[in-house]
Amino acid sequence: MSRNTDTGPGDTTTAKSVQIHDPTLRDGHHAVRHQLSSRQLRAYAAAADAAAVPVVEVGHGNGLGASSLQVGQARCSDDEMLSVVREALRSSRMGVFMLPGWGTVEDLRKAISHQADLVRIGTHCTEGNLAERHLGFLREAGVDAHAVLLMSHMASAGRLAEECARLVGYGATGVGILDSSGHYLPADVTERIGAIRAAVTVPVLFHGHNNLGMAVANSIAAVEAGVDIVDACARGFGAGAGNTQLEVVVPVLERMGYSTGIDLYRLLDAADIAATELMDAPPSIDSVGIVSGLAGVFSGFKTRVLDISQREGVDPRDVFFELGRLQAVAGQEDLIVDVALNLRATDERTASHV
Amino acid sequence: MSRNTDTGPGDTTTAKSVQIHDPTLRDGHHAVRHQLSSRQLRAYAAAADAAAVPVVEVGHGNGLGASSLQVGQARCSDDEMLSVVREALRSSRMGVFMLPGWGTVEDLRKAISHQADLVRIGTHCTEGNLAERHLGFLREAGVDAHAVLLMSHMASAGRLAEECARLVGYGATGVGILDSSGHYLPADVTERIGAIRAAVTVPVLFHGHNNLGMAVANSIAAVEAGVDIVDACARGFGAGAGNTQLEVVVPVLERMGYSTGIDLYRLLDAADIAATELMDAPPSIDSVGIVSGLAGVFSGFKTRVLDISQREGVDPRDVFFELGRLQAVAGQEDLIVDVALNLRATDERTASHV
Repeated sequence: MSRNTDTGPGDTTTAKSVQIHDPTLRDGHHAVRHQLSSRQLRAYAAAADAAAVPVVEVGHGNGLGASSLQVGQARCSDDEMLSVVREALRSSRMGVFMLPGWGTVEDLRKAISHQADLVRIGTHCTEGNLAERHLGFLREAGVDAHAVLLMSHMASAGRLAEECARLVGYGATGVGILDSSGHYLPADVTERIGAIRAAVTVPVLFHGHNNLGMAVANSIAAVEAGVDIVDACARGFGAGAGNTQLEVVVPVLERMGYSTGIDLYRLLDAADIAATELMDAPPSIDSVGIVSGLAGVFSGFKTRVLDISQREGVDPRDVFFELGRLQAVAGQEDLIVDVALNLRATDERTASHV
Repeated sequence: MSRNTDTGPGDTTTAKSVQIHDPTLRDGHHAVRHQLSSRQLRAYAAAADAAAVPVVEVGHGNGLGASSLQVGQARCSDDEMLSVVREALRSSRMGVFMLPGWGTVEDLRKAISHQADLVRIGTHCTEGNLAERHLGFLREAGVDAHAVLLMSHMASAGRLAEECARLVGYGATGVGILDSSGHYLPADVTERIGAIRAAVTVPVLFHGHNNLGMAVANSIAAVEAGVDIVDACARGFGAGAGNTQLEVVVPVLERMGYSTGIDLYRLLDAADIAATELMDAPPSIDSVGIVSGLAGVFSGFKTRVLDISQREGVDPRDVFFELGRLQAVAGQEDLIVDVALNLRATDERTASHV
């Protein structure tokens, strides 16, 4: 138990509470191609539980039902992951994630049979309607169901607020936005969360990525703008530049006067377990991560952009920025070749005029 | 040259200019125990110069004259480092750093003979008077001389402003604060920089560390509060959690409408060179880094705190927090043993009452 309880105004009983949602074992899973073992899942889940982390999310990086040749086969089945983590958690709630299209209502039934406490349904930021049936099913089943909007920088604050209100109408008991590309600066978050906060009465959440070194600062901005739930991963475990770092954002929030209910020393212990047991190295911000964050491009494009750029002899950074201008989204991988060919043609025209 | 010049309001000719000062080859040197070779120094300096980074600082981590058994012997002599970097720079200015006590006026003469363009003199945040003689010497010599206050979180905004005004009186042509422990949150920076900005008319600078994941956000807060100069290192190269990440803070500033004059693509190239040539791995935020940042403790205490804590059977995190409460500073290493023994005695008393 932490000796250091003198963290400032957060000690007062009137401190605003912020709930931490920990997707280390789900979003972090992307960083190791979904290869965490039962032993690894158990070790981290137990440590997070001991620290009193409110929600521990588990699964394939792309959620329930996503394990496949196309996006990568997980080492463990959904059944195995859910039963291992369920058993490891004493007080933390177990969360799962699902993207309609990858997962189905059958996967939701399975999660319920494993006593998942909280289900998140994610859709592209302007396609909340794809979650209608799943949210309806979860409402009928009486399961806590949050709806989250991916690549949320691609929609305006007003559009996101509308979409969130619609999701609540479908049955979402919480709504929020993911900064999937790590594109936001704090002012962007403040504006969007403010609009969403004004549009719904259910809990609002924010999920950040660290491409521009702003994940913690953006999470703080989100809390100040009214979110109730902040996502964060131990050591920032996640693909590319990684997620908001859990054991950093918690003491920072406490120091600013918010209450998380988490034991700092045990949280640091859990993060140390994550560092030694789950990952080869913690995420860091490399040049590709910066460019894709600036461009606001889906990080899953990375390998293909690098390969095609090399083949066509163009600068991959130009390709990222052009994909960003075109608002390319997952599924539009064909655009990468078009963009590269166009850039090459432009380069050749320029060269012929010099 | 970057194709992507569409970075928002920063493109307008009225954008406020922020000067970037790059201590990758000086403060970063701490991360590799001052063992950079001539080849490494040359490679990075040339790359930073090509990106139009305004100031490239070089030297032993503790500055001119500091290479010693006590804090570590550098691989290259000051003469060698300065001549190699001087030769590599075409347009960037060469900066050096000195801590009175480690370096002397003789070292300043040597730096001047190597055509250093800018000398920084650092002192503990309340001991600017120790820089009086050196600043006077540099004023006489007509050399641009900035004075910086270390461990600046230990002094109030008003005290820092007073100290900065005094330093200007001694001849400093620029003044600023270092967040040596990575303790600040943006509001802390805003308050302190605001006070300093109001107290002096010379350029003001901010130098951040990333222990709480806030180095970029704090640098932005500093710019918004009026600093003219921001320190940042490629990949955040530096001891422990590292420094403000150069190739992140530059495009973030540009996106916010500030102008740095730096070429983004060449800067990313320079950072890639730093990543592959200078370091084994980029800095990351580990649990000790977080605790020393929260506690506001000199990062150089780390190894000794861990050793003594293990020997006395106490939690090193408790030792850090207690050292923070005692406002321990470099040179007070003896306090570590006292703190550890006191904690052990408290533990034993507690145990005997259970």
